[in-house]
Amino acid sequence: MIRHLVLFKLNEGVSHDDPRVSAGVAAFTALGGRVPEVESWEFARNLSDRSNAYDYAINAAVADRDALRRYADHPDHQAGVALWREFATWVIADYEF
Amino acid sequence: MIRHLVLFKLNEGVSHDDPRVSAGVAAFTALGGRVPEVESWEFARNLSDRSNAYDYAINAAVADRDALRRYADHPDHQAGVALWREFATWVIADYEF
Repeated sequence: MIRHLVLFKLNEGVSHDDPRVSAGVAAFTALGGRVPEVESWEFARNLSDRSNAYDYAINAAVADRDALRRYADHPDHQAGVALWREFATWVIADYEF
Repeated sequence: MIRHLVLFKLNEGVSHDDPRVSAGVAAFTALGGRVPEVESWEFARNLSDRSNAYDYAINAAVADRDALRRYADHPDHQAGVALWREFATWVIADYEF
């Protein structure tokens, strides 16, 4: 199994109640149920006020690297990424578990 | 339950086989079993070659915010953080699940 982690940081000046953020949150909240390769899915808003805290996180699991590639290529994933590109940056880590 | 995610990036010029990295990896590999508050623990090296991929990740779960505070204050956690400060930076996200 491969774990796929993503931490998102809103761009400077973008607030959580920006309608673009709301649309992006809705897209990623639903995404786990729309991509068959996703075996577990958590998408959530950060609650830490530490200075190195990012704003949102994805914590997902897929079977293997092929499944991760199909997830990345899925049109609903691509559409969500296009939304988030407008107001956030992110970093990732993938690992076997 | 609270999920605690940490993504670590090695500083410029630091390689995975740097002995400081080996010591830090050993410390965080063992940490989950040393802190009573930790209910699930994954610490792993990233396998993605994407440009926004960080190098290591912690994916842990604790009961609540008090447990997260006790985890953060635990001497073994503090000792691990002190090691990692010498060769890496990191970002975090915590969320309820």
